[in-house]
Amino acid sequence: MASPKKKLQGLVAATITPMTEHGEINFSVIGQYVDYLVKEQGVKNIFVNGTTGEGLSLSISERRRVAEEWVTKGRNKLDQVVIHVGALSLKESQELAQHAAEIGADGIAVIAPFFLKPWNKDVLINFLKEVAAAAPALPFYYYHIPALTGVKIRAEEVLDGIQEKIPTFQGLKFSDTDLLDFAQCVDQNRQRQFAFLFGVDEQLLSALVMGATGAVGSTYNYLGKKTNQMLEAFERKDFSSALNHQFCIQRFINFVVKLGFGVSQTKAIMTLVSGIPMGPPRLPLQKASREFTDNAEAKLRSLDFLSFNDLKDGNLEACS
Amino acid sequence: MASPKKKLQGLVAATITPMTEHGEINFSVIGQYVDYLVKEQGVKNIFVNGTTGEGLSLSISERRRVAEEWVTKGRNKLDQVVIHVGALSLKESQELAQHAAEIGADGIAVIAPFFLKPWNKDVLINFLKEVAAAAPALPFYYYHIPALTGVKIRAEEVLDGIQEKIPTFQGLKFSDTDLLDFAQCVDQNRQRQFAFLFGVDEQLLSALVMGATGAVGSTYNYLGKKTNQMLEAFERKDFSSALNHQFCIQRFINFVVKLGFGVSQTKAIMTLVSGIPMGPPRLPLQKASREFTDNAEAKLRSLDFLSFNDLKDGNLEACS
Amino acid sequence: MASPKKKLQGLVAATITPMTEHGEINFSVIGQYVDYLVKEQGVKNIFVNGTTGEGLSLSISERRRVAEEWVTKGRNKLDQVVIHVGALSLKESQELAQHAAEIGADGIAVIAPFFLKPWNKDVLINFLKEVAAAAPALPFYYYHIPALTGVKIRAEEVLDGIQEKIPTFQGLKFSDTDLLDFAQCVDQNRQRQFAFLFGVDEQLLSALVMGATGAVGSTYNYLGKKTNQMLEAFERKDFSSALNHQFCIQRFINFVVKLGFGVSQTKAIMTLVSGIPMGPPRLPLQKASREFTDNAEAKLRSLDFLSFNDLKDGNLEACS
Amino acid sequence: MASPKKKLQGLVAATITPMTEHGEINFSVIGQYVDYLVKEQGVKNIFVNGTTGEGLSLSISERRRVAEEWVTKGRNKLDQVVIHVGALSLKESQELAQHAAEIGADGIAVIAPFFLKPWNKDVLINFLKEVAAAAPALPFYYYHIPALTGVKIRAEEVLDGIQEKIPTFQGLKFSDTDLLDFAQCVDQNRQRQFAFLFGVDEQLLSALVMGATGAVGSTYNYLGKKTNQMLEAFERKDFSSALNHQFCIQRFINFVVKLGFGVSQTKAIMTLVSGIPMGPPRLPLQKASREFTDNAEAKLRSLDFLSFNDLKDGNLEACS
Repeated sequence: MASPKKKLQGLVAATITPMTEHGEINFSVIGQYVDYLVKEQGVKNIFVNGTTGEGLSLSISERRRVAEEWVTKGRNKLDQVVIHVGALSLKESQELAQHAAEIGADGIAVIAPFFLKPWNKDVLINFLKEVAAAAPALPFYYYHIPALTGVKIRAEEVLDGIQEKIPTFQGLKFSDTDLLDFAQCVDQNRQRQFAFLFGVDEQLLSALVMGATGAVGSTYNYLGKKTNQMLEAFERKDFSSALNHQFCIQRFINFVVKLGFGVSQTKAIMTLVSGIPMGPPRLPLQKASREFTDNAEAKLRSLDFLSFNDLKDGNLEACS
Repeated sequence: MASPKKKLQGLVAATITPMTEHGEINFSVIGQYVDYLVKEQGVKNIFVNGTTGEGLSLSISERRRVAEEWVTKGRNKLDQVVIHVGALSLKESQELAQHAAEIGADGIAVIAPFFLKPWNKDVLINFLKEVAAAAPALPFYYYHIPALTGVKIRAEEVLDGIQEKIPTFQGLKFSDTDLLDFAQCVDQNRQRQFAFLFGVDEQLLSALVMGATGAVGSTYNYLGKKTNQMLEAFERKDFSSALNHQFCIQRFINFVVKLGFGVSQTKAIMTLVSGIPMGPPRLPLQKASREFTDNAEAKLRSLDFLSFNDLKDGNLEACS
Repeated sequence: MASPKKKLQGLVAATITPMTEHGEINFSVIGQYVDYLVKEQGVKNIFVNGTTGEGLSLSISERRRVAEEWVTKGRNKLDQVVIHVGALSLKESQELAQHAAEIGADGIAVIAPFFLKPWNKDVLINFLKEVAAAAPALPFYYYHIPALTGVKIRAEEVLDGIQEKIPTFQGLKFSDTDLLDFAQCVDQNRQRQFAFLFGVDEQLLSALVMGATGAVGSTYNYLGKKTNQMLEAFERKDFSSALNHQFCIQRFINFVVKLGFGVSQTKAIMTLVSGIPMGPPRLPLQKASREFTDNAEAKLRSLDFLSFNDLKDGNLEACS
Repeated sequence: MASPKKKLQGLVAATITPMTEHGEINFSVIGQYVDYLVKEQGVKNIFVNGTTGEGLSLSISERRRVAEEWVTKGRNKLDQVVIHVGALSLKESQELAQHAAEIGADGIAVIAPFFLKPWNKDVLINFLKEVAAAAPALPFYYYHIPALTGVKIRAEEVLDGIQEKIPTFQGLKFSDTDLLDFAQCVDQNRQRQFAFLFGVDEQLLSALVMGATGAVGSTYNYLGKKTNQMLEAFERKDFSSALNHQFCIQRFINFVVKLGFGVSQTKAIMTLVSGIPMGPPRLPLQKASREFTDNAEAKLRSLDFLSFNDLKDGNLEACS
């Protein structure tokens, strides 16, 4: 049995999988990506091969290699590397879990299977349990995202007595806006040292007040620093300042949501902000349009999320 | 033009329409109901003929009489009486708006029409504008509840420039969990004195932190006092205490949600807690089951939301 | 007790409510409309104040006057006039049912209530029963349209033993594509003389083969003649010809569906084809765009559904 | 380039993947299964690794082995073996397509990717095209099942000009009840020799009349003989008899649908009817309950779909 891991907290970036123009994985920039997250964004935890990372669009062997690369490049730089090992096939999910343990990842996360769907919480928990058992020394996180999976079982019901069923259970990534469900997860498990990670970036403040202990999301790749300022304001009970930070972040997200915002667009924005080429997504996604990128860039500049010396005199929104 | 109304804030109870065992409106208890809200729950604003009040199950003439009774009985006791005048027929909505003005209500609220649906925000705003114009001296509230109406137009888009279109616009009842949309309504209208009333009772705290100025809901009929304690803790920046209050309230709501919770159940709970007979709902609803009522009662007692002297020594959850 | 009505069969036009440019009901053209249906389209049954007729956008007093006008103008010309009396308020539905009886309509139809929704089939049947009881001598039709009401109760379950509960029950308007449900309604009620009217115009042939005895729809206002040809081909077992007619009708509907097709567009098309001004719809709908009308007209001509002498040499699709 | 395949027509059984009690694939009964389909059900085409076969719950290497076994055991017995090679990962889908070609399958079918979703028809077609290109000599079928994938792109739009994009395109498996879309696929592609295979077993007759050339489904595993009788009646234009067969089949499906009907239940029913042990499903499904199996068995007997000598005098429904 591995030594107990420290609790996962704060911001966790859902990593993008960089690709070449031909849609092959571009492993060469991952080291640079790690440094960028740590130094420029102040983000030291990552969530690999999730939705943002196009994890389910990769082959199993690609998922293994991507996980390995992040673990290797993150060593001594990142705090925790959690690998998403969810798959439609239990066997493949188990293979990925075992592999995560072998490469020295810090945890695994699993989504509910979503083609053939579990009919009730017991079947879902059985599925999760079988995956967890393949990596008996790794912290296990349940990734709750009903809008994408169509699995309507409440997280609170999944967590009821989960430690008896899955001893490695360590926390929840909750990607939904039902804060009754989320807060009851927190309330009913107060005695336990679980991580309650919120996954709807644009309304993180609303979950912090409900007891979230951290957050996993794609925007922390490029708005990590800004979001950390919000977390700090919240910590010191400066709610007015925290809300101002949240509003600023929302102005950007609200803007791109109206243009159509998904993984393709996240890749384009990250390329803009970090300067590291993320490349296009793989089919069934297609590259963000030039029009999107231009509009997003202008908005980033107006909010001072992307600054160039010669623009400093421009028309900034009051987001400082 | 009427004198400017003071801003609607704090808790607003979505009133139940009391009925006799035969499904006729029981006007006789409304005076007692007003006193109960003010004295026992500390709630001085009401929202009449909304979803909780089975407003759309009443005939137009019944809606007029119910509105009149609440205005009359609330005089000098309540701060504000807002009448929901939304209807599928624009003409009927206008008739109700005009009537609300005649009887001296303090405001009107309108839901998006939901059988034939507006195709875009402009058509929706035109509809709302036509209703508002029928009561040109009354504050106007837009009641946003996409899950019930199926109208997916974002509130933030409806509010964009709304004062130019609807000069009487005074606020929003936002009954949804999309707090990006809600908070952007607040952020983009900071200069205006709008009321931002949240309508998902079980997660009110998450909206307070996002800038909500009040709340409209059915649970404030019987949990108003408890919720006011949460509001006060939030005001004095005692977030830990506010969250505890929110958790307690959620424990009850979470419990009844699992049993099946709607207007019928609200009537049963209010009867239990207030002692005022709310009666059964009207078709297409049916009376809450005896099983529901028994379970709800036991939960109310265990949470100390319903106390009897002889139970004080019982098994209370830590919700004080 | 009224004398038994003959069974409703064949095509039933869901009538449009003609309006003036100011959105008031244009009663003056209803006589002409009746003649057009009978003489030009060969349609002798109508369904008044349904979805197509914007029934739920009218006030109760308007619904009464519209019903009355159709009954009056249809006398000795039409076979049957069925009035849709569904409403969110049971009381208003009952008032309309009683009125339909008083003016001598041939039947009433009721949709499931759809704001507050019946939780199970028993509550739904109770609701329908209460409406039917207000017009005890009129044939009663249940109008099943789950996509619009959100009421997922299967029609087959509603019809199970319905004659014991609603003695005036005479048939079903089934507006859905679940032909398992539809066909089981037919199969399980073979001994009874119910009308099984299908309500998805663009795939009527698929329901005829499953046992439909007729159809109610908006397209029979202007494609009644064409559809009657399909019915006749089906009757004489000329399936190849029936399918050709169905394909032709579909080409038009498929074309307008892609442009956005609803009640507004139906009004524009009917105005084009019949020459009788249907006017704009009432809010929350808005008038079909000029672009829609132009495109629809071109398609109607290319399919020879709208012929002008000088176009006879044009580019017709093979739809004769 | 392979010699042109003959057109796929008639019934195609969506094969179950037999499993042991421990959830491993039970290859040993596949030969027996082939004989049963051919001899007892008169079904000579199969669709392997689809929804019914739990294809997406298998690992890629399992999918390869299952495909291989069916091709091997079906040689000289079955007419056509189509392998479903759809996967969330394009690479894996391509690997499976290439493998299908190598083992000598008769065609491949692909579902729209459904976690990250194609935004429009062009992206979807690009995805399909990339898979098809991995097996350039194999007939390609598009498997349209919007209710499971959430991809709302109409099949008719996907088929528009598809031969220019995917030269191996040979047909459509259409698993939806939108018969406007289905029939327009047929109508607009009359000149081409495509197979139009319907996938909603319980209403196959409605698609036959619209031009379906065959059907793919799970019920043809055990109701193939019965369904073939319906096809024959339809062929000889005996619609009354065809409808009677359809009603009988529906009585069974309607019955199990009410009990909860999915892949687990299909495995239980097939075991009952064929006597070949299909075993339990794999997680996230769970074995059909004993109660389901008992009820299904009783219904099968009452409909004479499962006959035992000693029951011949029992209470049969009129389904002969």
